[in-house]
Amino acid sequence: MSDPTLRVGILGATGAVGQTFVRRLADHPWFSIHTLAASERSAGKPYREAANWLSSRPMPDAVTDMEVVPCTPNAVEADLVFSGLDSAVAGEIEADFAHAGFPVISNAKNYRMDPTVPLLIPEINPEHAALIDEQSWENGGFIVTNPNCSTVGLVCALRPLVEAFTVEAVQVTMLQALSGAGYPGVASLDALGNVIPYIGGEEDKLDEEPRKILGTYENGAIKEAKLAVSAQCNRVPVRNGHLACASVRFSEKISPEAAEEALRTYTSPVDVSALPSAPDRLVSVDSAPDAPQPRKHVYAGNGMTVTVGRIQACTVNHVKFVALSHNTIRGAAGGAILNAEQLVHEGRIQPVAA
Amino acid sequence: MSDPTLRVGILGATGAVGQTFVRRLADHPWFSIHTLAASERSAGKPYREAANWLSSRPMPDAVTDMEVVPCTPNAVEADLVFSGLDSAVAGEIEADFAHAGFPVISNAKNYRMDPTVPLLIPEINPEHAALIDEQSWENGGFIVTNPNCSTVGLVCALRPLVEAFTVEAVQVTMLQALSGAGYPGVASLDALGNVIPYIGGEEDKLDEEPRKILGTYENGAIKEAKLAVSAQCNRVPVRNGHLACASVRFSEKISPEAAEEALRTYTSPVDVSALPSAPDRLVSVDSAPDAPQPRKHVYAGNGMTVTVGRIQACTVNHVKFVALSHNTIRGAAGGAILNAEQLVHEGRIQPVAA
Amino acid sequence: MSDPTLRVGILGATGAVGQTFVRRLADHPWFSIHTLAASERSAGKPYREAANWLSSRPMPDAVTDMEVVPCTPNAVEADLVFSGLDSAVAGEIEADFAHAGFPVISNAKNYRMDPTVPLLIPEINPEHAALIDEQSWENGGFIVTNPNCSTVGLVCALRPLVEAFTVEAVQVTMLQALSGAGYPGVASLDALGNVIPYIGGEEDKLDEEPRKILGTYENGAIKEAKLAVSAQCNRVPVRNGHLACASVRFSEKISPEAAEEALRTYTSPVDVSALPSAPDRLVSVDSAPDAPQPRKHVYAGNGMTVTVGRIQACTVNHVKFVALSHNTIRGAAGGAILNAEQLVHEGRIQPVAA
Amino acid sequence: MSDPTLRVGILGATGAVGQTFVRRLADHPWFSIHTLAASERSAGKPYREAANWLSSRPMPDAVTDMEVVPCTPNAVEADLVFSGLDSAVAGEIEADFAHAGFPVISNAKNYRMDPTVPLLIPEINPEHAALIDEQSWENGGFIVTNPNCSTVGLVCALRPLVEAFTVEAVQVTMLQALSGAGYPGVASLDALGNVIPYIGGEEDKLDEEPRKILGTYENGAIKEAKLAVSAQCNRVPVRNGHLACASVRFSEKISPEAAEEALRTYTSPVDVSALPSAPDRLVSVDSAPDAPQPRKHVYAGNGMTVTVGRIQACTVNHVKFVALSHNTIRGAAGGAILNAEQLVHEGRIQPVAA
Repeated sequence: MSDPTLRVGILGATGAVGQTFVRRLADHPWFSIHTLAASERSAGKPYREAANWLSSRPMPDAVTDMEVVPCTPNAVEADLVFSGLDSAVAGEIEADFAHAGFPVISNAKNYRMDPTVPLLIPEINPEHAALIDEQSWENGGFIVTNPNCSTVGLVCALRPLVEAFTVEAVQVTMLQALSGAGYPGVASLDALGNVIPYIGGEEDKLDEEPRKILGTYENGAIKEAKLAVSAQCNRVPVRNGHLACASVRFSEKISPEAAEEALRTYTSPVDVSALPSAPDRLVSVDSAPDAPQPRKHVYAGNGMTVTVGRIQACTVNHVKFVALSHNTIRGAAGGAILNAEQLVHEGRIQPVAA
Repeated sequence: MSDPTLRVGILGATGAVGQTFVRRLADHPWFSIHTLAASERSAGKPYREAANWLSSRPMPDAVTDMEVVPCTPNAVEADLVFSGLDSAVAGEIEADFAHAGFPVISNAKNYRMDPTVPLLIPEINPEHAALIDEQSWENGGFIVTNPNCSTVGLVCALRPLVEAFTVEAVQVTMLQALSGAGYPGVASLDALGNVIPYIGGEEDKLDEEPRKILGTYENGAIKEAKLAVSAQCNRVPVRNGHLACASVRFSEKISPEAAEEALRTYTSPVDVSALPSAPDRLVSVDSAPDAPQPRKHVYAGNGMTVTVGRIQACTVNHVKFVALSHNTIRGAAGGAILNAEQLVHEGRIQPVAA
Repeated sequence: MSDPTLRVGILGATGAVGQTFVRRLADHPWFSIHTLAASERSAGKPYREAANWLSSRPMPDAVTDMEVVPCTPNAVEADLVFSGLDSAVAGEIEADFAHAGFPVISNAKNYRMDPTVPLLIPEINPEHAALIDEQSWENGGFIVTNPNCSTVGLVCALRPLVEAFTVEAVQVTMLQALSGAGYPGVASLDALGNVIPYIGGEEDKLDEEPRKILGTYENGAIKEAKLAVSAQCNRVPVRNGHLACASVRFSEKISPEAAEEALRTYTSPVDVSALPSAPDRLVSVDSAPDAPQPRKHVYAGNGMTVTVGRIQACTVNHVKFVALSHNTIRGAAGGAILNAEQLVHEGRIQPVAA
Repeated sequence: MSDPTLRVGILGATGAVGQTFVRRLADHPWFSIHTLAASERSAGKPYREAANWLSSRPMPDAVTDMEVVPCTPNAVEADLVFSGLDSAVAGEIEADFAHAGFPVISNAKNYRMDPTVPLLIPEINPEHAALIDEQSWENGGFIVTNPNCSTVGLVCALRPLVEAFTVEAVQVTMLQALSGAGYPGVASLDALGNVIPYIGGEEDKLDEEPRKILGTYENGAIKEAKLAVSAQCNRVPVRNGHLACASVRFSEKISPEAAEEALRTYTSPVDVSALPSAPDRLVSVDSAPDAPQPRKHVYAGNGMTVTVGRIQACTVNHVKFVALSHNTIRGAAGGAILNAEQLVHEGRIQPVAA
């Protein structure tokens, strides 16, 4: 990759996802936060006033006095932009930035299922980045997305199994953390000591996104993987960490030992070791009887590793397991940053001449 | 049934399940608490001192000064005994009481899978009570059990489906409440803001108990139902209420509407309306998009009704749904008391001449 | 009191406090819910659609299909109205109803400190009701208020001490439940596993309301009690129940035993035993070392009794103790209903000729 | 200080405090974990098996295979030992180690109030270390203690006030985290959604420890400070972070502004900037209206800074404020490590010739 630091803009910088971008980019070796953009309401204010800072770690010094600008291309100076925008506005604003020539690395759902937009996880489907060439924004701009926070953990755990065997179907129950709902998100009276067995739109995303992510790139298009995912999504009173209780049906009987071996030995199709946010392992198998737990394992690989445990034979399908991922890191800002790193590494993002 | 009130003893009266027996029997129209039995450590103390009272409702006046006796048949005067004993001691003590001629209505797991012991839910398999005739304790004693707290909600929701259609397999993820672990149970540092994806022995019970409960009584034995249940059990930070996220495979495609119709129209094989603890409905279907929730629905039918919601088509199996049951009421003491009521109603329990 | 049931209207019927009014009035022996009034947004809808029902107990059948009307006097037919209105609108709407001749029994803060409005707790200051005669609304209407939810528990525990001794000052730290913030109220990401040491406006109310409540009625006015209350208010992740950790300075040294005796022997200045919502005791002393706890004691006296514990000598002031009250029952709707009962009992509220 | 790394032993290494020692010493620039000692039950096992690892961060690689030894001096090779022992055994074992010539840096309560044992906080009373010279163990051993976890936050906030003004009395309500009770500690059924207004022995420690810590060293003894502390201690469902709601009475009226100025400008009596665990500031004042909160501020200064907020006038005493400290870091292992660093810096701990 190129030596000079790239200037990044963050769209939706004051929201929950935007704040995670800020936190994880504050010390990034390749990227430097150059512009914080948010709604008109925040524009003109210093970031410390515009953002209701949610993290338990203090706001990075570098951004506290940075003036927030509006989410319009001519207000933003950057080599690339990260989008933590709400889906209600992301569609239009991201298109504006792409038209204006920006690489848009988005966490929003709006373009995920667009046939020309990569739904990218570098350790799984780096070749999907080639879809960028099919996009028709002007001035060289493009959009790349990362999966929904509930999809990520499951699909990372499935990828080694899909590679090694033929996966036909997956039954999954999600136990999803409160931070996945943003801020203010779920009311405390609904969350405390309760489970809410419904998250709007989430079960559909778990059905369609894996087929695209695990699909194959052929001649400028993705051929979807043939597997069914049936999900039941629950909100549980956990701060961070989505837990997937999954059961997998293969084309033929696969033992839990064989599945575990596939999970333990999986290697990324491209070497990601040079990418600053890439963890040592995409998937880590923990054989403790009560692993993985949000409290104990959610920060594995600095929040970028998916921990899989309780791999056992299933009497209804073939193999069941539990996978845990950090929903706001691997499942949102961290995943998007890794995508940007991979695109820089490939040369698809370069410094704009100042 | 007989008019006179029956005298009951409670074995393990100071434990969490024992306390629930005490609470629910305090105002019972048929049963009167006559003896509280517990370990040697508690024996001789008044109940208010022996029991670390856990409920948010005050200890019933009738028991506060009652002296706790040891768990031996000659210390207990009663027409029947309820057992809330820990499984570590229940096997031997319950046998002692059955040998001594007591009807033993047990919540412990020890005899549940014994071929001559009914695993009884009156609205599902009342005919299984006939197994009592196969038991060979002396003096007319017998043992009847109720299912494990995690099995109950699932099996109540399955019963109408099994009756109406042919169920082949069930994939289920359980989200189980803390009270299911007894007291002190789960450490708060493990529970708060966390999920523990493991409960020892629970997944096995969910596999084997439904086959017996849903089996058919034939000539002094139960012919197990042919269905596979594959479970993943999680402990979640909820006080009361086990949630089952289930997906059912039938012998042929069944629509969610047909399944819902079966659930809505199910009626018990025997009329239980005369039983004081029987709810109006064994299963209640709630069509709100975010039902059932522990906080909102766990006390349906005074804790004896199972609430089912989110009935929808499953792309992997056929129909999926979420079922909620109160684990210490329908799933423990309340279920056992209903069993006793049914046995009294049938004439299998009668006052012992004083 | 008069035999016929009185028709009540509930203003702000869809909010959190309004719903508590609905719950507690559904089976009331004297009052019958006749009109549910709420904002224009809800008007015209059946209650079941207009209200996002928050309780764990089901919505009473009697109100599910009742059509919500606007909060204007000519839309409401009732012998009295309860107001669970938000303070942003309560001032004007309650005045409209008082002008129109309605007795307005309000839980809102707007008129609490008005010199002619009783801040009433029947077991403490029933004579304050005479202030009604000083009000100058037309058509015989009037307004009576109950204290803020955080004031109630403290002032109920102080009243016996004020009667028996001379209280000079009170230092109090409040640990307040989430339901005190209404719905949606506190965000779960702020509440879970956290304490927020700030509740806007609450500390001031704890300083001024007790002086009025504990003041003496003289010639159409309240002479405030002379005592200082200095409060620190915290929000804690508890559903219901405000806990007050208080330390009291008397004019001379008072022993904890003497204070406890005063608390145990306190009797209401008027006999409230005929009032349906009045608990046996305003204050109950619990001498368990770890009492009172929200989970164990908040429903004492059906939520209307304040539980006091941990009475001990204070080395800085004289006596310290912990008092627990149910913030949405004694501290809101339940307190207002008791006020209405007392006013009916006194003959200040009577059926309007239909 | 001396260049070579010092070898440390950890007594009670498998417990909750011991694990915090392990975590914070794993990368320490001056100290190297050389011996892990625990009860006979753990002795002989590798640490990964002996310890039920509680942290959300993984066990440090350096200790996973280290063999646990018994808590006897001849089994331990070290230049100093940290004690995370339970008070039931700490008295005898720590004495054994002191007699054997070890510097014992203890978090246990047993010797805290011993007249010859420093109750040390380097930024507050470093001169108290001279008490070591009054100890009469053999072979040059000695014991130094840090305060109870609930005392620390309060006393750090009081120290600047005591220095600038004359503090007469402090009324304090503590909201204490679950981790303060160790593991398994509080049962989840008691903790979830509840407050327990009692912690055995804690209120007494808050009365006596501050007087010693804030006392003056004179001729080999501590002259206690003259101030009364009256505490009410509550357990709240928070993982880490003790919150002190305090109200201070001075000898004359002090304004909140003057108190804040004293807190903001306080400097340690000795320069601690060379100590690796010393934070930039002992006390940090946060003027946000809702600060400090456990979730947002407990890791200030890497868990070693006490955050003070809500400084305001008190109508009963003079000034009230809220102080937050990390109970297992500044309040336990972190405080003990800082003590050891200060003693090394002073030359009171030196490498033992091997």
